[in-house]
Amino acid sequence: MDVVFFVLEIVGTVAFALSGALTAMKKQMDLLGTIVLAMTTAVGGGIIRDLLIGRTPPVSLVNPLHPLIAVGVAVIAFLPFVQKWLSRTNNTYDLIFNLADAIGLGVFTVVGVNAGFTALGEPNLFLAILLGVFTGVGGGVLRDVMAQNAPTIFVKHFYATASIIGALACALVHMYWSELAASIIGTVVVIVLRVLAMVFKWNLPKPKYFVER
Amino acid sequence: MDVVFFVLEIVGTVAFALSGALTAMKKQMDLLGTIVLAMTTAVGGGIIRDLLIGRTPPVSLVNPLHPLIAVGVAVIAFLPFVQKWLSRTNNTYDLIFNLADAIGLGVFTVVGVNAGFTALGEPNLFLAILLGVFTGVGGGVLRDVMAQNAPTIFVKHFYATASIIGALACALVHMYWSELAASIIGTVVVIVLRVLAMVFKWNLPKPKYFVER
Amino acid sequence: MDVVFFVLEIVGTVAFALSGALTAMKKQMDLLGTIVLAMTTAVGGGIIRDLLIGRTPPVSLVNPLHPLIAVGVAVIAFLPFVQKWLSRTNNTYDLIFNLADAIGLGVFTVVGVNAGFTALGEPNLFLAILLGVFTGVGGGVLRDVMAQNAPTIFVKHFYATASIIGALACALVHMYWSELAASIIGTVVVIVLRVLAMVFKWNLPKPKYFVER
Repeated sequence: MDVVFFVLEIVGTVAFALSGALTAMKKQMDLLGTIVLAMTTAVGGGIIRDLLIGRTPPVSLVNPLHPLIAVGVAVIAFLPFVQKWLSRTNNTYDLIFNLADAIGLGVFTVVGVNAGFTALGEPNLFLAILLGVFTGVGGGVLRDVMAQNAPTIFVKHFYATASIIGALACALVHMYWSELAASIIGTVVVIVLRVLAMVFKWNLPKPKYFVER
Repeated sequence: MDVVFFVLEIVGTVAFALSGALTAMKKQMDLLGTIVLAMTTAVGGGIIRDLLIGRTPPVSLVNPLHPLIAVGVAVIAFLPFVQKWLSRTNNTYDLIFNLADAIGLGVFTVVGVNAGFTALGEPNLFLAILLGVFTGVGGGVLRDVMAQNAPTIFVKHFYATASIIGALACALVHMYWSELAASIIGTVVVIVLRVLAMVFKWNLPKPKYFVER
Repeated sequence: MDVVFFVLEIVGTVAFALSGALTAMKKQMDLLGTIVLAMTTAVGGGIIRDLLIGRTPPVSLVNPLHPLIAVGVAVIAFLPFVQKWLSRTNNTYDLIFNLADAIGLGVFTVVGVNAGFTALGEPNLFLAILLGVFTGVGGGVLRDVMAQNAPTIFVKHFYATASIIGALACALVHMYWSELAASIIGTVVVIVLRVLAMVFKWNLPKPKYFVER
């Protein structure tokens, strides 16, 4: 079971690091900027989670595994032939970015939910869900703010919603069945919802009367 | 007395949530973006306060009351007829936004001062005032950075100043008279200063020699 | 020895406060905006460090020394004749800004490394270095995000790199020789690297295949 969590976090770290590296390269940052943004995106959510539950210093500052993975991802993404492949067409770029972002969102939502359950003595459904959402969207918000982009969370359809529904699914399965099943189901729910939202271009209503400003 | 604090925090939460929802709708965010920004603005200051005094997990993540109020405010503000009313004219929008923002600033400044007094064993005037200002302006800064606006704190005249003066008033009354009176006086001072600054367009000097850049 | 640390932190505070004040005046913020940005830049890195190692409330909120120094620096920089001198030419401005920023980066990198060594029972090289970098770049990132500038860390050549190399030097000297020597050597390494990078316009490779987007 610990192996599953271990693998899951590595997958999420790789995915978020890739989304950070792609954002940096599109903004014409140099090699080091690309590394820094990949690292910020990959470990940002976890650091926010650790600060919120009072686990200091945060795990990513004590154990170099995840930060080093993020550095590795950034360096590989920067290799000329990888870069060339990633930037072939706008569609390739968007597809890879959105998929990486969805995987990171899914994994870190679940990581946050699990941390929320163990943070207090008794289980608190509300804390678990909100901590899941904060951990899930945290890395991406830091990435977007530092790259001066509009935060994905406000721009992409069904982004926070996917995280909320996944966190709820994860928390309920966690409470009534098993933590292992909860983690896998929660991650899959978020990723599937994000992919469906992209494919079918799900829309939420926009403010009608504020249009003309 | 507890009732006064309880009501005060709810008023501040509603006010800051409204300012976040208005900002989101003006930026043409969809329903969920509006909810997220309302929640960020309303609970952001309190989370910053809790992190700074080491109260983890933060109250808003454990007790759903304030986040849910923020969600409610965002949904109501998004209702077509409310939206229509809020966006009638630029003046209506500005008036409501500035008033909501002033109320939130006042309440959360006071909330931060009170937390500052109880954070350490002995009372520390400096901590109380600075924690008041950080808590007061925190939610608005998060709102503005996430919405890619220039932070109100740098744009509006007499914004941080109002919070500082209110925090000082609150802290002094707290030390020499009563916590209850301090909370009410502090809140009122901030709101009155902000309203006066808006009505009379108080200006602080601008840098003269940097103009031409 | 304590005197050296004390003086070092004051030098860093003055330098970062100046970089914040210059940024604010260039953005045409008023006197109070200049004070707020100077303070944010000067104490931001230290607050991030304290939150990451769980030292709450952060030192700068309990002890007014550093925040008050930042206020003093901002007020002096705002004086008409100082302002006039600072803004004489673009070159003067850039030179002073970059130097102040380099000194702040150097000092706060070292401050973070030292905090990292004492945060856990046993020394952890990785924690020391990463905490050094976060503390060093933290104030500047907050300054740039709040002023809506592209974070210096992504724009300036050899910025985070200088902090990483300085943190590594500081940590190694700290482990194998003395904390005092480590602090001075670390600070000097960062400043010298930044100055060399500026003078010789060191470049890191940029993404080649993302150019046309």
